Amino acid sequence: MVDIRKVTVLGAGVLGSQIAYQSAFKGFEVTSYDVSEDALAAARDRFTKLAETYTREVPGADSSSVTAGIDRITLTSDLAAAVTDADLVIEAVPEILDLKREIYTKIGELAPESAIFATNSSTLLPSDLKDFTGRPERFLALHFANKVWQFNTAEVMGTADTDPAVYSAVVGFANDIGMVPIELHKEKAGYVLNSLLVPFLNAAVDLVAGGYADPEAVDRTWMVATGAPIGPCRIFDIIGFTTPYNIMSHGDAHAQELAAWLKENYIDKGKLGLASGEGFYRYPEDPSGD
Amino acid sequence: MVDIRKVTVLGAGVLGSQIAYQSAFKGFEVTSYDVSEDALAAARDRFTKLAETYTREVPGADSSSVTAGIDRITLTSDLAAAVTDADLVIEAVPEILDLKREIYTKIGELAPESAIFATNSSTLLPSDLKDFTGRPERFLALHFANKVWQFNTAEVMGTADTDPAVYSAVVGFANDIGMVPIELHKEKAGYVLNSLLVPFLNAAVDLVAGGYADPEAVDRTWMVATGAPIGPCRIFDIIGFTTPYNIMSHGDAHAQELAAWLKENYIDKGKLGLASGEGFYRYPEDPSGD
Repeated sequence: MVDIRKVTVLGAGVLGSQIAYQSAFKGFEVTSYDVSEDALAAARDRFTKLAETYTREVPGADSSSVTAGIDRITLTSDLAAAVTDADLVIEAVPEILDLKREIYTKIGELAPESAIFATNSSTLLPSDLKDFTGRPERFLALHFANKVWQFNTAEVMGTADTDPAVYSAVVGFANDIGMVPIELHKEKAGYVLNSLLVPFLNAAVDLVAGGYADPEAVDRTWMVATGAPIGPCRIFDIIGFTTPYNIMSHGDAHAQELAAWLKENYIDKGKLGLASGEGFYRYPEDPSGD
Repeated sequence: MVDIRKVTVLGAGVLGSQIAYQSAFKGFEVTSYDVSEDALAAARDRFTKLAETYTREVPGADSSSVTAGIDRITLTSDLAAAVTDADLVIEAVPEILDLKREIYTKIGELAPESAIFATNSSTLLPSDLKDFTGRPERFLALHFANKVWQFNTAEVMGTADTDPAVYSAVVGFANDIGMVPIELHKEKAGYVLNSLLVPFLNAAVDLVAGGYADPEAVDRTWMVATGAPIGPCRIFDIIGFTTPYNIMSHGDAHAQELAAWLKENYIDKGKLGLASGEGFYRYPEDPSGD
């Protein structure tokens, strides 16, 4: 029996703060850890803005429930205090292998033996980290998407060492915080979502970069053919150009050509997608609201 | 000034009959050509069924308008008569290069010099055919999707020889028959739609065939992440397994592995997608209605 009640989120950046807030909003006692008082001050701002966003965008959220969410979060820059009585530690620190290994080595000592560790890493496999956790059987990946309250997938991916009971408990937790758990049966770089998105977006960029078709035509084709509300170029704008550019830059020769084209025609001109006001499309006003 | 009034569709198979019927339903005088009286009898059945389908599925269609559509179609197995006064000849004969070249050689002689020729080929480029038409400047590709009344893209793709006025006229015609014209600026195998669909569906099959995730999880991920009404495995079922299987069989080594997996686990068991009652999903009753 694995019971998850106290949740600690390591890292209070864009996604870390969302994971912490979503968990607290759904009733969990949450500890939000980051490295410095400055980082915690930024985290406080993020939680305040998330409360405003939830009030606007989450059905049923009101000023009382979003404030209760904030009240269930304890902020700390003391790692030992952060994990000392955690049932689940979700790690959302920067995507740097050595940094993650270092923090797992530390919390492996500091957290109770019963604590489950979950990495939110997008680009590393849990196998890259498990031997540093001191508890490979209680370790797996739990991968969220930006804007967790709207794009509420939670991809759950263990290693060969992960205890099935731990896996099930984390799937249950994902459900409890309003996520749609996506169960992977074995490790896959990119999980499900990026395994689909990367070739799809590459194909769209290939059509536009090659001069075959305009972004509008590419998107229209997809929308008519599949009934989707938006097409790949619009998705690209919403994601923002930076992450796909970085992925393409590390791809094969053709992907690298596409990355160079993106850099020259968009990134170097400050066109980074919706958040910057222009990408494949122009956005006269920022409609993201956050 | 290019005026399109009389339309001839060569080939009255699944898609040829849909193109002919859609054009007639939208008010064009249409000649539907196929090679034999038997083929024409089958075409008549197709038109009758299309009239029923349109009554059910096309907003605004009623028994009067769908019958008027049928009345505007002339069937013939006489190729000379079929094209003698055509403004636009849409070729939808089987995807066999020599067969298409042979028919273009014939109609190049039989049709008026002013006639525009358009190929609906999915897999051949118009460049593969243009030198057999006797009119490369009045030749291009006009590519429809199955169920033209619902998936109403019409991809328009010329060669370097295609007269821009001819291209524009065909775009206008596509609009006139209720299609969404998708303009390609130069030749691309797979046009826009299959250039997006093929890598997308391959990625989905890769996830399922590799045992990483179930079809339901793959689709759910896509739907939550992009707001799409269906995911890739469901799209696969709707398209049917045969065409993607054929494309994968001619792909790279990895695509061929996926094709072999599809054959062993689905095709050899008669699971060919929605039309067969089972694919990645099961369909206890045929919901396609046609």
